[in-house]
Amino acid sequence: MGKKHICLDIGGTKVLGAILDEKDNITFKVKKKTKVDKGLEKVEERIIDVVDELIKESGTDKNEIAAIGAGAPGVINEETGEIIYAPNLPWKNYDIKKVMEKRFGIPFYIGNDANMGMLGEWKYGMAVKKENVVGIFVGTGVGGGLIINNKLFTGKRHDAGELGHMSLNTEGPYCNCGQRGCLEAYASKISITREIKVQIERGRKTILKDLLGEDSIIKSKDLKEAIDAKDSLALEVMDRAVYYLAAGTGNLINIFGPDMVVLGGGVLESLGDFIMPRVKDYVKRFTLPEILNGTEIVRSALGDDAIIYGSLAIIKGKKG
Amino acid sequence: MGKKHICLDIGGTKVLGAILDEKDNITFKVKKKTKVDKGLEKVEERIIDVVDELIKESGTDKNEIAAIGAGAPGVINEETGEIIYAPNLPWKNYDIKKVMEKRFGIPFYIGNDANMGMLGEWKYGMAVKKENVVGIFVGTGVGGGLIINNKLFTGKRHDAGELGHMSLNTEGPYCNCGQRGCLEAYASKISITREIKVQIERGRKTILKDLLGEDSIIKSKDLKEAIDAKDSLALEVMDRAVYYLAAGTGNLINIFGPDMVVLGGGVLESLGDFIMPRVKDYVKRFTLPEILNGTEIVRSALGDDAIIYGSLAIIKGKKG
Repeated sequence: MGKKHICLDIGGTKVLGAILDEKDNITFKVKKKTKVDKGLEKVEERIIDVVDELIKESGTDKNEIAAIGAGAPGVINEETGEIIYAPNLPWKNYDIKKVMEKRFGIPFYIGNDANMGMLGEWKYGMAVKKENVVGIFVGTGVGGGLIINNKLFTGKRHDAGELGHMSLNTEGPYCNCGQRGCLEAYASKISITREIKVQIERGRKTILKDLLGEDSIIKSKDLKEAIDAKDSLALEVMDRAVYYLAAGTGNLINIFGPDMVVLGGGVLESLGDFIMPRVKDYVKRFTLPEILNGTEIVRSALGDDAIIYGSLAIIKGKKG
Repeated sequence: MGKKHICLDIGGTKVLGAILDEKDNITFKVKKKTKVDKGLEKVEERIIDVVDELIKESGTDKNEIAAIGAGAPGVINEETGEIIYAPNLPWKNYDIKKVMEKRFGIPFYIGNDANMGMLGEWKYGMAVKKENVVGIFVGTGVGGGLIINNKLFTGKRHDAGELGHMSLNTEGPYCNCGQRGCLEAYASKISITREIKVQIERGRKTILKDLLGEDSIIKSKDLKEAIDAKDSLALEVMDRAVYYLAAGTGNLINIFGPDMVVLGGGVLESLGDFIMPRVKDYVKRFTLPEILNGTEIVRSALGDDAIIYGSLAIIKGKKG
């Protein structure tokens, strides 16, 4: 039996795959667009392509691969490997484990992407051996993961941890989920992009206009470029996003009294230096001081590889 | 050794004590004002008075009492019996267990009041054998308790579960805790009273004016009387409080994906018939429908005795 692993981060826009060697180091990576608009079969094909390419391009023998692990958006039963539903992918009661094991003849494991990100940080990143941890992952949307009593908490129906859909303003802007004032409606790249576009249409001068181009959602690296250039709109929009990220963080600190809050995802990966000091300052408005004193707020150590490492953790049965 | 128990609900305004027989039935009750303004020693004396009176007035032999249990506000280490701090009582690093055991020669156990309320409902009330439960207790303030993976969750520092200090509006009214827009700043009797007083001062006609009298905080039974009389201010103020209670409930459902949310406390005890249908309706605005479908929202079965029964549960070591 092989000692290497393939781990996948399946997202609404891209599938990231990695081969990890027997020492858990990433030795090879492949990234492809998900092509979610082309339907279930196309998405399945893209995932299979990524695995095929990882094996072929890295010159790995398939027998060296002990297991494949993955994180994907949606409500996923990580015990059976079934995707119960996924809001942004064409999946409902989809037995991806069966499909993948049939195709590759290799054991396959899968969990919710934000939960896998949390698990990665807890087993291989910033939150190793912490008893209670809240993970908030800011990217296209805002996902969450919870470690409670030294264990990944996903609830009885595998749907817990929707931290991005905590309302921070009962009369705030509508979120894609239909609620109002969700953390995701303020701090995600979807909402940041919406805000930027509105301001550009109102004639606001900003280098974000050229950076955004035809993109439907702004790239984190473009946001960073604008922040580095001290673009006033970028500074203002990001400051507002960080304020609400701090409000969400504060609420979760009051609820959980956690040892640590890990902030991660693509936006933190690119803009952590801008975000972290501001979030630590704003969060004081939104916490009980005695509880905040016991909570570390840190930036993800694994960045874009958090879900890859979380997938490795579920392969190894390390859910706590 | 005795087979009966004494259980105490120590609050900022009153101390409620009960004797429970060997079948866990309450056989005798005593209630006294806490007299919190008279300082630490006076409060201690009042608690001791309640225990003395329970024993004396019920004609119980002290040797029949196997243990004394209690719930009190604040951050309490339920393993050591130490009150770490309590915002509304003159206690800081106060070893109440030592004081009580020295005084009575009977084992003493104590936990945070909202946690004890949750434990009571989980062991003896509505939430028996549920895996994940959120308890929200609405009285003078708003307290919370969490059952996670069949266990009372209080966090590593015993300060988790401050559900009342989740902000539902980042720019909302200031709460006593210094944050803005907390659930407690909308749904507690303190905030309901504030709203009523402002409207009375503005000349609004309401029977609440007479009912409130000189009281600094309105009584739940007076609120009920005004609601039953279809007093327009009472209806309006309570509807607003329920709306925010639903917002808080919805956020917690999205975060925990719980099996059950138990709503309790004095306000629910008196006004549950008014609150429950409204909260179940409003909560749809504040949840992801798939998660809400799996969550029962119920009214406390134990009412004013929830903390008494939770105290019995910690005496018996039933924390899950």
